[in-house]
Amino acid sequence: MSRATIDWRADIEAAAQRIEARAPGFLRETPLWRLPGAALGVQTPGVEIWLKLEQLQTSGSFKARGMMNRLLANDIPAGGVIVASGGNAGIATAAAAQALGVPCEVYLPEVSPEAKRARLRALGATVVVGGAAYSDALAACLERQRTTGALLTHAYDQPEVVAGAGTLGREIERQAGGLPDAVLVSVGGGGLIGGVAAWFGQRSRVVALEPERAPTLWRARQAGEPVDVDVSGIAADSLGARRIGAIAWEIAQRHVPEALLLTDDAIRASQQWMWKELKLAVEPAAALPLAALQSGAHVPGAGQRICLIVCGANLDPATLN
Amino acid sequence: MSRATIDWRADIEAAAQRIEARAPGFLRETPLWRLPGAALGVQTPGVEIWLKLEQLQTSGSFKARGMMNRLLANDIPAGGVIVASGGNAGIATAAAAQALGVPCEVYLPEVSPEAKRARLRALGATVVVGGAAYSDALAACLERQRTTGALLTHAYDQPEVVAGAGTLGREIERQAGGLPDAVLVSVGGGGLIGGVAAWFGQRSRVVALEPERAPTLWRARQAGEPVDVDVSGIAADSLGARRIGAIAWEIAQRHVPEALLLTDDAIRASQQWMWKELKLAVEPAAALPLAALQSGAHVPGAGQRICLIVCGANLDPATLN
Repeated sequence: MSRATIDWRADIEAAAQRIEARAPGFLRETPLWRLPGAALGVQTPGVEIWLKLEQLQTSGSFKARGMMNRLLANDIPAGGVIVASGGNAGIATAAAAQALGVPCEVYLPEVSPEAKRARLRALGATVVVGGAAYSDALAACLERQRTTGALLTHAYDQPEVVAGAGTLGREIERQAGGLPDAVLVSVGGGGLIGGVAAWFGQRSRVVALEPERAPTLWRARQAGEPVDVDVSGIAADSLGARRIGAIAWEIAQRHVPEALLLTDDAIRASQQWMWKELKLAVEPAAALPLAALQSGAHVPGAGQRICLIVCGANLDPATLN
Repeated sequence: MSRATIDWRADIEAAAQRIEARAPGFLRETPLWRLPGAALGVQTPGVEIWLKLEQLQTSGSFKARGMMNRLLANDIPAGGVIVASGGNAGIATAAAAQALGVPCEVYLPEVSPEAKRARLRALGATVVVGGAAYSDALAACLERQRTTGALLTHAYDQPEVVAGAGTLGREIERQAGGLPDAVLVSVGGGGLIGGVAAWFGQRSRVVALEPERAPTLWRARQAGEPVDVDVSGIAADSLGARRIGAIAWEIAQRHVPEALLLTDDAIRASQQWMWKELKLAVEPAAALPLAALQSGAHVPGAGQRICLIVCGANLDPATLN
């Protein structure tokens, strides 16, 4: 991948138009909620926060954008669609397949909870338990894909998935009628930040946020290339990719000047705060942008407009207590 | 009360300007989220739904509007502010008092849960347990008010409280840049529908929604005047007033052509649906508008714009499972 930003923006435009034309009503235009910084505990004067409530997106996360774009940008074989994921990528793939009326197989490991399997079945997917751990389920999924020829979706490292995620950046700019000074984005495998940074390019400052215990982009920046990292901690469920995606890495090198690490305690505190004070029920991964502000890891300049992407809400609400 | 609608609208304008001028940043402009009807299961073609996400308001419900207006529209005595409520009205009064730096006493019955008392204390209120039942706590509160001269806030039946709630209608019209064809509103004591119907008047159709087991307005319409009703059921916690307020009754007679009853099952189903499909965590009272659509109690006309007021989110999130 070494395409210029302008190509990415054209791909993102094409993705938005493709989805609108061929799957109208599948995506929701999620609210962009503007609040004074003081309402979120930001001390710098004159700061305006834009909360992009993308946890309200179809399937409960931004991933519906990328998965629908992946499905629409390819011919779907008789074998349908296949994915190995019990998380947001699997749910989004199943939701997109259901909306298009194509079969979907989801491979999960034995450790996956029954609640996730039931949710996938409710979306019309065929759930296959393929081995003890995630790596086994992925291997079984790839083996099955070779047999059936089904279209494989990847949680983050496919161009159509990144371009689909980029439609979120486009939507923010349209809703606001302008650019934020900074966009704060959680990073796992990098699908979201890849798309968002490809859209904004140098026009807004894109800040990458990772849990200390899942630092895929941070370690890649240290090493000068994507490397495997150990992942654990509060957000491992959704930000637990072991390595930054190749596409996101390429885009981030050009357009992401800053990558910050946040402690699990800071993430948890902001997640709880979002429920208690704002009545937003979000997963830990979605709390990193606010945690960056509330912990002081990112300090806005006076009068700046800071966009926080609230990326998902696939959580057990009882964990908010 | 027999003032014309035009007076109410002036009072609502005054309330909005008073709050903005004297308590800037206390209220949030909550999102107005527009979705195609099909996204919510509405079959009628061309319907647009406006979800007014007022559960994201300061204090977790619309009541912050009325309580702040009540406090600002009166001189606050040295005794501060006093209220008998463990629910949204008490929380909103405490939040408004805290924001203005005035003392606040909240009277609760012995049956009130410790979690509610803790929340009120966290807002700086002095919590007084005043008797076994709510009626005892109210009596103790009124006795105390006579001693201290504190400003009493009522959950719904004070003009400033109704006018404050009306700022929600004004905000909807401003955000949309126009009027909805219908506004669906939950009714307990009537503070919300009083304010909203006073704002919209005959310009939009205001539809009152009540649980079958807490039908204060419905029974008043049958009887031709406010009467006491038995209240129980899923939404009794927040819609459990025993009688429609006099102010709301007067306004509703002129501007609310339709009052519908909904079953607890329908309310619960839509509350669950809002979490599962939209990732909105709301209390049962806030689910009545969607329940009216999803149960078929209210059927929009083709192409209509229907505003659903999502009024509060003071709930234990574990109850969403």
